[in-house]
Order: sequence, then structure tokens, then C-alpha cells
Amino acid sequence: MTFEQINPPQRLLMGPGPINADPRVLRAMSAALVGQYDPAMTGYMNQTMELYREVFRTRNRQTFLVDGTSRAGIEAALVSLVEPGDTVLVPIFGRFGHLLKEIAERCGARVAVRETEWGQVFTPAAIERAIIETRPKLLALVQGDTSTTMNQPLEEIGALCARHGVLFYTDATASLGGNAFEMDAWGVDAATAGLQKCLAGPSGSAPISLSPRAVEVINGRRHVEAGIADGTAGVGTRIASNYFDLAMVMDYWGEQRLNHHTEATSMLYGARECARLLVAEGLDNAVARHRLHGDAMLAGLLGMGLETFGDTAHKMNNVVAVRIPEGIDGDAARTALLMDYGIEIGTSFGPLRGKVWRIGTMGYNARKDAVMLTLAALEQMLRTAGARVVAGGGIGAAREVYADAAAVPAGAAS
Amino acid sequence: MTFEQINPPQRLLMGPGPINADPRVLRAMSAALVGQYDPAMTGYMNQTMELYREVFRTRNRQTFLVDGTSRAGIEAALVSLVEPGDTVLVPIFGRFGHLLKEIAERCGARVAVRETEWGQVFTPAAIERAIIETRPKLLALVQGDTSTTMNQPLEEIGALCARHGVLFYTDATASLGGNAFEMDAWGVDAATAGLQKCLAGPSGSAPISLSPRAVEVINGRRHVEAGIADGTAGVGTRIASNYFDLAMVMDYWGEQRLNHHTEATSMLYGARECARLLVAEGLDNAVARHRLHGDAMLAGLLGMGLETFGDTAHKMNNVVAVRIPEGIDGDAARTALLMDYGIEIGTSFGPLRGKVWRIGTMGYNARKDAVMLTLAALEQMLRTAGARVVAGGGIGAAREVYADAAAVPAGAAS
Repeated sequence: MTFEQINPPQRLLMGPGPINADPRVLRAMSAALVGQYDPAMTGYMNQTMELYREVFRTRNRQTFLVDGTSRAGIEAALVSLVEPGDTVLVPIFGRFGHLLKEIAERCGARVAVRETEWGQVFTPAAIERAIIETRPKLLALVQGDTSTTMNQPLEEIGALCARHGVLFYTDATASLGGNAFEMDAWGVDAATAGLQKCLAGPSGSAPISLSPRAVEVINGRRHVEAGIADGTAGVGTRIASNYFDLAMVMDYWGEQRLNHHTEATSMLYGARECARLLVAEGLDNAVARHRLHGDAMLAGLLGMGLETFGDTAHKMNNVVAVRIPEGIDGDAARTALLMDYGIEIGTSFGPLRGKVWRIGTMGYNARKDAVMLTLAALEQMLRTAGARVVAGGGIGAAREVYADAAAVPAGAAS
Repeated sequence: MTFEQINPPQRLLMGPGPINADPRVLRAMSAALVGQYDPAMTGYMNQTMELYREVFRTRNRQTFLVDGTSRAGIEAALVSLVEPGDTVLVPIFGRFGHLLKEIAERCGARVAVRETEWGQVFTPAAIERAIIETRPKLLALVQGDTSTTMNQPLEEIGALCARHGVLFYTDATASLGGNAFEMDAWGVDAATAGLQKCLAGPSGSAPISLSPRAVEVINGRRHVEAGIADGTAGVGTRIASNYFDLAMVMDYWGEQRLNHHTEATSMLYGARECARLLVAEGLDNAVARHRLHGDAMLAGLLGMGLETFGDTAHKMNNVVAVRIPEGIDGDAARTALLMDYGIEIGTSFGPLRGKVWRIGTMGYNARKDAVMLTLAALEQMLRTAGARVVAGGGIGAAREVYADAAAVPAGAAS
């Protein structure tokens, strides 16, 4: 058996993620390796922590990477914070809420859920009511759920949680970097993300940040058997995972540099570059850029005569769900777009399966040319497939959004 | 805060791993991303499975990657195979045996250990005695433990386990690719590895292979709540992790392509290239190459007048432990080697702390020039530090090993 060296086809990835990585991120990942405790390596680790503090908008000392995909970050947060028997409240407005529920269950939690219709978000009042009814130790809430494209407002939730003595975890995988996120100002205790959405990198590293309150909970679960015999050991039950034991991971990233896993150096190089580019652009500028190109895509789809799904007032900047026109086979159309034009858009899950496509404009692909190309190809593909579309209507509407945005500062518009 | 783009110093990593990645692996990792279910991506996933079957020497269909470091692979295997209350037998001959014990404990297992002195390995008779005494469900045994450099012989262990109805897991992280490993011929039920040792890649992806018997155990733990309601569901207790639930990961890599994590595409490209290069070289040739350069390093250290540690008859090909000469501060000497010569060698843990250095010759660095440079620099560094060394003795002895190996086929001596 012999295989050729890797040579993937060029694709424009305009689905809900993963998206094309910024070439600068891939170049950073090809840098030479250094040893785990090389001063260069520990220096890069410290820089990565600093950079992600800025990305999460936090002063949390405990801001670092979990080595794995975004899902690894979620599980690390939950298994380290949640003890068997704890009550966890999960308001579900899409597929990733179900994932939080499932992971919390596997941690042995008693999980209370509240569900809202796909395409909607929760009001703070509804969440407070649920907190009062269920008295959870932890609220686990997705910020942006790509399955429905909704962006749950979080501004008031932290204060709510603080008032009721509830820890507040949020999964910001799909939203971070492309939508406002203010860890400290919003009172979030634990947040996790991934690189493959608005951060413009490949999947495989999960940035995480923990508030002092979250750290205290985790420190209370250190056990003497884990080799750490300090005063805080053994109050809570032992964390059921070694790999995701955030107490140990903190000691590895901290000044003690206690050996845990062997850091995934190339992924760390990539994660550092993702954050470095975002911080250099400015987080506000990056969010504005995602808003601009998301608005252009939305306007373009509507201008083409298509209908969107859900409460678009609460849509994430970086993804939109569009109804598959009547008479069109959604999967065949996606395949045609991929095979004829090299453009990938997303399918859907659960109640939306077969009903909508999801189109992303995020990270490296939150760019005008990516939006215009996608609209142009989509119009042609739909016409070929026999759907009625407004000729030139998509491009025209997107161009108007870009023209109106001429007042936006240059740095934010590209 | 502004940081420069990544620019690590050039190091020759001659410790127990991580080591310098093969430049071809880093180049493969910089290839453009494609979508998760792109035919190109699923094609690469299938090729990766095929390639690792050859690396593990197995026909196991279930041979794939866990997204995380080698430790993630260990935990995925143990949490998926071991149920709370199961007895797990861990023969410990170094630091990584203690890790297996700790992870098995966190899975809720009753862990029985047998320990041997650091620098020794177990006889099959000792392991069989322990099996008879403890009646485990699973034997968890490290193959190569870098902490002691020992390579536990596994040839007879699988048959032993089969005779007693015991599942056999082995952690081959440090040994695979540089030392003989025969998954099927030796009757191993589950094996995991990493890229950062003899596979010549960066840490961050964990190849794993599961025998049909192991798969059966895992399938018995599928639960209806996990969304899989087939006939095998719910016999065992639910796997306590979502991320490491190998039943779900198998469904993601299998023909069903059920969505689980978002594959770490760049790491997969790298893992595929690691295996592709190894398979092209031939596994037997790769093992011979590691043996040759390991022998040269060992001869060189002895020729310099240094003493090695442990039972070198059972040493891994790819790492050697050498006693720190009297009067030399081990850490200061390592720092001098790094700062003056750009060469990293390894420190030690536990009972060997401060007593030995560990010097690796593995993966991309299992090369003559890497061995010769390391010996030359080590001699000069030791002389500078005031240690007595045989001038030119290391290089002379290594050159003899290479001369004797002139008969080795060209492809194997690289």
C-alpha cells in the first residue's frame, strides 16, 4: 500500500465551521519544535495565556489551552467543575445544548433542562425562573449555537447567577472572536472555545478561561493521590478524568510547570497565532468585520429571493440559516456547489434536517470576496437546479451593504 | 500587547521525546483544510486507518486517531474498556505504569499493581502469577517506559491473557515505530501511541487500535441516550466520557460517519504523513534504524567513560539512561548543552531524579549526524564542567558501530 503525499483540493469553506484556516496560522504551525520545558516553549505558553485573556476579555490568570477539539474543552470544564450528584441547569436552544446536557450527565450530574423552539433564544427572566426552580450548582449555556445560528444574549446572565450563587459556564466555541464576548464584564466563570470558527485556525486546540471562583471549586477537588498534598486537597470528589483534570493542567501551565501531558506544540503555535492576529486586529474590529460580512451574506440571500430561518435579530454574525427552496434536493445541491464551484455550505441537524442550509462567514472567510463568490455560485447552482432566483439580486444586495459600510473604519472592513 | 510571529530557536531534541518533527510531517500539516465530510477528508481518514493498521501490524478494522496527546489515547482506551468496579492489573516498571494505575483508578476500577525495581522488566511468569492472584478484567501494561528506558517484552503476554480470559491493553507511545510491535501476532486487544516519539511528528494525535474483542466490550456499553439504539445497547455501564467514548468515535470514523468531534484536520494530516513515511521505509527497516543509532549512542556514551543505567539488554532502541558523572550538576549541565550547543537531553523523574540523563535517538533524530553531534557536544560540555571523559572515546566507539553496520541494507541505515 502506498499513498501520495497530502494534496487536498482547494475549497472555500462557507459552512458553519470548520472553515479555511488563515495561511499565517498554518505557517506558524510548521515552525520547528522545541522541548516541552525549553525557555522558548514556556515563553510561548505564557504569551498564549496573555493573548487569550485579551480574546476572552478577562483578567483571569487561569486562561490556557486544553489539547483537543472544542469538545475537549467543554468536557474538561464540566468534569472539573461538576461533581456526581450536583444539579446542572442547561437551557437548550439547539444541538450544542443537548451536548452540554449529555456531557453533564456523564459527569454524574442531575441535569435540569429547559428547551426553547429552534430559532429562538432565552430571556434572562426565563433563565432566572429556571434557576429558582432548579437551584443548580452550575448553569451551562451555549453562546452561539451553529445548529440554529442563534446567539444567546449573555450580558445579564452572570449577574443573575452571582445573585443566586450559581456557577456560570458558557460554550463560546462558535461565537468567540466574531460576536461580542466579555468574560469579566458579563460575570462568566468558565468559558471554552475552539480554533475552527471565528478564530481562523484548524480544530484541535480548545482555549479555556476560568474565574477565581471556578478555580476555587477545582482546587477543592485536588486529591493527595494526584501527587498534590496541599491544604486544599480532598474537599470535593476526585475529578474522574486525568487528561481533563484542570487542576493538573493549571499546574502544567503555571509557574510550577508540573508535568502532565506533552503539550501539542504545533497546535499551540497555531492557537497562539490565531489569537495574535485577532488581538492585532482588535477584538472590536474583528466583531465588526464579522457583522459586516454576515450582514452582506444575509442581505444577499434575501436579495436572491431566499428565506432565512429563525429570529435573525438574535442571529450570530458569522452564520445564517437559509431555507432550501421548494423542489430542491438540499444534499444534491450542496454536492453540486462543492463539486462544480469548490464551495462548501452546511447541512442541518435535528428539526432542521433537510429544511435549511447553513452558510458561514467567519474567521479567514469573513471577507468580501468570499461572500460575493458564494452568492454568485449559489445563484448559478440554484438556477441550474431549476429554482427560481432573482438574477443578480443577491450580489446587488450584498454590494449595497458594502457600499453603506464605506463609513466603517478601514481596519474593520476587511 | 504585541507579540512577534513565531520564531523558535533551532534545537536538536535528543531527549526522551518530544523530538524534532520530520520536516515533511510539518509540511503536510500546513496543507489547506477541507470540510469534515468532504470526500477528500473521509478519503484521508480511511487512508490513515489503513496506514496505522500497518504501523500497529494489525488487521483490526477499528484503527484510528484520538484527537489529543498520547495521554488522551490512554484515557480513551481505559475509560471505554474499564467499568467501575472492574479489576485492572497494572505491572509497574516506571512512571508511565503509575499513570496507567491513576487513570484506571479514576475510571472507578479496583487496581491491582505489581512493581519491579526501576531499570528492570517483568517476566511472563511474574505477570501470569499476578493474573492468577488478582483475576483482572484487563491487564494494562506499558511497552516502552521512557522514565527507565526499559522495553517490556510483550511477545508471550497476549497468549497468557487469552488463556485467562483477560483483556490486554498496552501503551506503546514511546516504543511504536522504533521497537518491534506486533499487535495481532502478540494478541494485544488495545494499543495506543502518540506521534512525538519514533513516529517523528508533533504531540497532539493519538493512534489507537482495538481488537474485535475490545470492540465487543465497548459496543456493550452503548446507551440509548447516546442516540444509538441498536441491539447491543445498554449491557454495560455508560462510558463516563463523551469525548473519549470510543463507541461514538468508531461511528465517526466508520461508514456511518456519525458526527462526534470536529476532526483536528491538521493533526490528522500530520499523523497520516508520520505513518506514510514509516510504511514507505518499512516497519522492520525503521526498527533496525532505531536499533543502529541507539546502539551507536550507547557505545558512544560508554566509550566516553560514562555508565548507563538499568538492564540494557531490555533497553528500548530509542532511548538510553546515562549516569550523571560525580561532581556534575545535572540540570546545569543540561542547560549548558542547550544554551551553548542547542541540544536538548532529558532529565529524570522519581527514583532517578538527579541521577541520570536520558538521551533519545528516535524518529527524525535517529540519524548518524544527530548521534555524532550529540556525542561531540556532550564530551565538550562535560570537559568544560570539569568531568573526566575519554577524549574522542565516544565518537570513536560510535564510529565503530556504524562501521560494523556497513552490512546493514542501505534503506535501513538512513
